[in-house]
Amino acid sequence: MAIIVQKFGGTSVANAEKIRRAAKRAIERMEAGYQVVVVASARGHQTDELMRDALELNPNPSKRELDQLLSTGEQQTVSLFAMALDAMGHKAISFTGGQIRMMTDGVYSKAQIVSIDSDFIRYELDKGRVVIVTGFQGIDQYGNVTTLGRDGSDTSAVALAGALRAEECEIFTDVDGIYTADPSIYKKAVVLEEISYDEMLEMASLGSGVMHTRSVAFGKRDDVRIRVRNAANDNPGTIITREVPQMEGVLVSSATIQKDMAKIGLAGLPNVPGTAAKVFARLAAAKVVVHDIMQTEISPEKANLSFMVSTANLSTATQVSEELKAELGCDGLFVRAGIALVSVIGVGMRSQYGVAEKFFDALAKAEINIDSITTSEIRISCAVDKSQAEKALEAVCLAFQLDRPARQRAAI
Amino acid sequence: MAIIVQKFGGTSVANAEKIRRAAKRAIERMEAGYQVVVVASARGHQTDELMRDALELNPNPSKRELDQLLSTGEQQTVSLFAMALDAMGHKAISFTGGQIRMMTDGVYSKAQIVSIDSDFIRYELDKGRVVIVTGFQGIDQYGNVTTLGRDGSDTSAVALAGALRAEECEIFTDVDGIYTADPSIYKKAVVLEEISYDEMLEMASLGSGVMHTRSVAFGKRDDVRIRVRNAANDNPGTIITREVPQMEGVLVSSATIQKDMAKIGLAGLPNVPGTAAKVFARLAAAKVVVHDIMQTEISPEKANLSFMVSTANLSTATQVSEELKAELGCDGLFVRAGIALVSVIGVGMRSQYGVAEKFFDALAKAEINIDSITTSEIRISCAVDKSQAEKALEAVCLAFQLDRPARQRAAI
Repeated sequence: MAIIVQKFGGTSVANAEKIRRAAKRAIERMEAGYQVVVVASARGHQTDELMRDALELNPNPSKRELDQLLSTGEQQTVSLFAMALDAMGHKAISFTGGQIRMMTDGVYSKAQIVSIDSDFIRYELDKGRVVIVTGFQGIDQYGNVTTLGRDGSDTSAVALAGALRAEECEIFTDVDGIYTADPSIYKKAVVLEEISYDEMLEMASLGSGVMHTRSVAFGKRDDVRIRVRNAANDNPGTIITREVPQMEGVLVSSATIQKDMAKIGLAGLPNVPGTAAKVFARLAAAKVVVHDIMQTEISPEKANLSFMVSTANLSTATQVSEELKAELGCDGLFVRAGIALVSVIGVGMRSQYGVAEKFFDALAKAEINIDSITTSEIRISCAVDKSQAEKALEAVCLAFQLDRPARQRAAI
Repeated sequence: MAIIVQKFGGTSVANAEKIRRAAKRAIERMEAGYQVVVVASARGHQTDELMRDALELNPNPSKRELDQLLSTGEQQTVSLFAMALDAMGHKAISFTGGQIRMMTDGVYSKAQIVSIDSDFIRYELDKGRVVIVTGFQGIDQYGNVTTLGRDGSDTSAVALAGALRAEECEIFTDVDGIYTADPSIYKKAVVLEEISYDEMLEMASLGSGVMHTRSVAFGKRDDVRIRVRNAANDNPGTIITREVPQMEGVLVSSATIQKDMAKIGLAGLPNVPGTAAKVFARLAAAKVVVHDIMQTEISPEKANLSFMVSTANLSTATQVSEELKAELGCDGLFVRAGIALVSVIGVGMRSQYGVAEKFFDALAKAEINIDSITTSEIRISCAVDKSQAEKALEAVCLAFQLDRPARQRAAI
């Protein structure tokens, strides 16, 4: 019998009425002949409330105790969810991460899943029960509760789907799926029918919400078909799946925008091995997250190195860079704030040409100056002035026809 | 190093301020050179709130899921308690019943403790940590959460104290200890310095609050010195301990009153083996809790049987008795409602005479008629008219000098 994993976030189980609505989703799948595993988050603002209780007693609580505390939120949801299904006439049983032996590496507050006892769940599924599992948490080898951190429940769901070889992992959320661009900026953006793991990973790393990199990476590793859909309607949502040949026909699947970026440049650095490593080690030690890095040789002895950071990290990054400038003896330090990064993503770029040209042409026609360009195998990003960010996104979306589903787009 | 177990009920940990106050109790004991294990209940009305959430989704929730849900209340308290101790500069670690392998028989909502892994706790204590354990809960052999039902946290604490061979188990509550009589009825009642397990068991079975029979029975089995004391002050409270010879010098340690009782009598029952067994099997099947039973032979062929039930069980008990009357062919059925049971308890009764006489004399002088009398080895109970219950209690307390500590009483 095929298995479906369904994940419901905190807003989808915030009260009794919403829990019942979510339970109906599980029943629909049961009645369609699937075995169903539900992964649920803590109700509504419960995690925030528990955090507030903790901080009232200790401004800097131990991560172990915080995990022990916060994990109760999901535990409450799953037992309530099981009761709801029971009241609707369906057999159900709830489990904590610990009870299904979702073993983690033991790093409190951001644990990694190491293994899952899927036999345990299969045994219950085979008894005709819906199995409801706490998202966001597991235990280490000593039985300590460990939470998975940000997007933890998605990761739990995708990892379970992988371990159970589920036919699909449905992620219920408050949006209709993955859009071609942020619909709050580009009003004509449409929901993608499908997207590859790699594209989704690029989007996630560019801060384009909905799914985070870790859960997508799990999906890619275990080849889990993920469906992102809206808990409030019956739209099919977006399927995140492995790359298939026809995806290459679609040049660009989406465009993203990252505002509040800044660029730091170290000009005339000594062009010797280890210089870049030293720079980024120091930035990492200062907990600065570095985005796109560009380095160009300007002479056999000198190179220019620049990188992007978010505005939030700018002052720390600047300070570290000033120290580095003195230490390494470079010619100058340039800081440019107020930058936005506009990117297009598509696996089709791997095999087809003309994407970069079309991208730059679109920006040129819109009279937007490009500060710098970076690329990956399936992504091209341009740094533009922040004031022109939205205009740039619109121009790009128009050029790549991101206002319509992939199938309806004209050839480039 | 000697170990102290401290148990804090829901009202003693209801908010941050109270948790801090409870944590100070643990620190005091630490600083006095003890290793400390804390057992905590769910905060304030949390259990009630979770129950309300459950009933909103299912009027008749499964006991397994209810246990899974309710157990989160204690889990929250223990992690918050550990954070509070940490903030006060003391090392602490919290555990659920499952984490310390408090194994139960698996009966949801009223599980019995089967075993505890005390090595696990000792290991943490030896690291200089206060160990904080959830009361009220354990797990079965499959890892299902099972709660211990009424007085579950007291039972957890006493069982832990037994397993750890603790020097003392402190039960923090909202009263000063065990009184010679209910102070809300007999204003001059005083707190007992100590009381034997057997006396406490008699009191508990007579519905005299503070401690329930199960936790006291655990204490008796494992010879745990239990101290019942007030969380809000530093009074020494009452020690519940094994019987020592000098206790016998105290004739009566306390007097109790049970209002809202009724008596049912089956007159002229066939005096053949198995009749009484049949009567009480039928009452048990109807879930009627039977108190004192009296049987007297009135002829070689006939006997009178009577028993006490609480007023709440009276209509069911009457109905069952009417069926039994027809089936067994007895001469008459008598029901008397509006009875109160006044009892005196004391291990001294075992070896000394005159208690019954003094008791009956006290009631006679107060012009109170005795409906019936029952006794155990360390208890005498008289059924009196409900309207005279308080007067009867006062008369008895006066006769046995229950307005002063045992040591200050004159000889009988």
